[in-house]
Amino acid sequence: MEGCRLGAACDFSRGMTMGGKEELLERLKKAEGHWVSGEMLSGKMSITRTAVWKYICKLRDEGYEIKSAPRKGYLLHRIPDRLLPREVRSGLGTKAFGQGEIIHFSETDSTNSRAKELAGQGIPEGTIVLAERQTGGRGRRGRSWFSPDGSGLYVSLILRPEVVPAEAPMITLMTAVAVCDALVPYLPLPPRVKWPNDILAGGRKIAGILTEISTEPDAIDYVVVGLGLNVNVPARQFPKGIRDKATSILVETGKTHSRAAILRSFLENLERSYALFREGRVPLVLDRWRSYAGISRQCVRVDQVGRVLTGEIQDIDEDGSLLLRDERGHLHHIVSGDVYYL
Amino acid sequence: MEGCRLGAACDFSRGMTMGGKEELLERLKKAEGHWVSGEMLSGKMSITRTAVWKYICKLRDEGYEIKSAPRKGYLLHRIPDRLLPREVRSGLGTKAFGQGEIIHFSETDSTNSRAKELAGQGIPEGTIVLAERQTGGRGRRGRSWFSPDGSGLYVSLILRPEVVPAEAPMITLMTAVAVCDALVPYLPLPPRVKWPNDILAGGRKIAGILTEISTEPDAIDYVVVGLGLNVNVPARQFPKGIRDKATSILVETGKTHSRAAILRSFLENLERSYALFREGRVPLVLDRWRSYAGISRQCVRVDQVGRVLTGEIQDIDEDGSLLLRDERGHLHHIVSGDVYYL
Repeated sequence: MEGCRLGAACDFSRGMTMGGKEELLERLKKAEGHWVSGEMLSGKMSITRTAVWKYICKLRDEGYEIKSAPRKGYLLHRIPDRLLPREVRSGLGTKAFGQGEIIHFSETDSTNSRAKELAGQGIPEGTIVLAERQTGGRGRRGRSWFSPDGSGLYVSLILRPEVVPAEAPMITLMTAVAVCDALVPYLPLPPRVKWPNDILAGGRKIAGILTEISTEPDAIDYVVVGLGLNVNVPARQFPKGIRDKATSILVETGKTHSRAAILRSFLENLERSYALFREGRVPLVLDRWRSYAGISRQCVRVDQVGRVLTGEIQDIDEDGSLLLRDERGHLHHIVSGDVYYL
Repeated sequence: MEGCRLGAACDFSRGMTMGGKEELLERLKKAEGHWVSGEMLSGKMSITRTAVWKYICKLRDEGYEIKSAPRKGYLLHRIPDRLLPREVRSGLGTKAFGQGEIIHFSETDSTNSRAKELAGQGIPEGTIVLAERQTGGRGRRGRSWFSPDGSGLYVSLILRPEVVPAEAPMITLMTAVAVCDALVPYLPLPPRVKWPNDILAGGRKIAGILTEISTEPDAIDYVVVGLGLNVNVPARQFPKGIRDKATSILVETGKTHSRAAILRSFLENLERSYALFREGRVPLVLDRWRSYAGISRQCVRVDQVGRVLTGEIQDIDEDGSLLLRDERGHLHHIVSGDVYYL
């Protein structure tokens, strides 16, 4: 394995032969909260007791809480709530997404920016970039995304679909469906999608999607799909300007949740939606999107560059655009704009 | 002015206050092949005779052939055939294209790659990147473009049109029109466009266009339009594999031509086409494209991913796609593929 090409704050991992540290961690996990003696670890792993102790130190540095006691040995007390590649991959039920490279940053400006750099170097589909914290988290059209340390999910996925650019809006919709699927088990009420790229819970924004594409006019080179999801962000932590518009799973449920588990569910659902999309079964994806949207007959205002439309949402089109009927009965096919519910 | 961010082989220039070297060059040019005395230069420019001589040395280093003789002074004998920013800009009749930054490389892998890097950093529309030689010149879909030193035009332009990605194919067509417009005065017969991105002279490829787009699903961030044009490439210099398919202005006319002059004409024509495109006057651009294509009723084979079509070209559509009628009379709307004349 090469070292990380991405600077100091990066933890780079891919599926590989298990090192001593990984094996030791697996053994502690398998003990499920029971003590494991240093002697036994040393014997099974054919390493010295000092080597065992060194690995324990390294794991503690990574945030694993490991108790030690004379004559008892070691006990894994708590796995850190960090999106470490090995924790994300552990139990991940996908074929490709997250099974290749997982790049993890303690901090970066934007996971989408990092993923675009990697994609431009030819890194394959399914690679994911994670950060505990974004210093320049981005939303659509250069807007910002509040990305506090350790309490959100900031993940970007590299895709290389063999489609023309006009089909790209479907990727945002398909991702929105996967986010909703992943959120359903956690929320008291089903989440709702807001065209084109927002996910709402209780009427407030809980997640946003940023799709960025590098393409020739007739063939996509790569797509980076970014997700920002507020998981364990307390209400008081949101900046004043967005406090009444933003929410998190914590706010909605009063409990904190494992970001790695939600991420795995998101990746599994997205891989399924993506397979449907690539097989040309777009109507199935759209039907799922509609079920989360409940859009029919909703009155909205749509702000576009240079004009504002108001009307009733009719449906979503095969190409992912919004169909809006204005007050005079004219039907508009909306490819681009910001929607506000009236 | 900042220094160049792009490495050693780069010559970075923007419109700025004229330095002593620039002023001296202007004065030599204005003398139009006559001698200019060092004393006069020194007096008019209010610098020492030694300073004049130092600027002369610098200009010679850049490839300007400047004669000197006792009591006569200096004479500009020959301007180097390099695409130096000042030579490109001299007499350039555009409003924006090439009037801001011109970045010139003696050598780079691909001017499109460099332009994409710059565009990603927010560099404005109209900026151009030039190279005397490309070590990894690229065509559509990762194909290569033969880019020998000093005999071709390898230029990339940054655009930021406020359009949706589906309109991007028009940018390739509009560029093809500008290339043809620029070539007409040089070629014995009008050039011909081959959908989507090739320009032919005498049935052989003389130029190719590579359009690369960075976009969100509903809004383009930037477009880089790259042109590779064979200007002064001798027939024998083309590699064996492409010798019977490639040509140059030199091959077609038996004469060498100023690359800077052709580049200026290309930029001027492209700026005009681009203005039409942005004003929504696409049919005007398409009409010009058709006039260079002579496509109607042409029998072709179209290779697409996963299938091959044969038929007769009917027209080009408003969105830049090709309309083909197959042997059974079915009309195909072709967005992507390689066309071969039958």
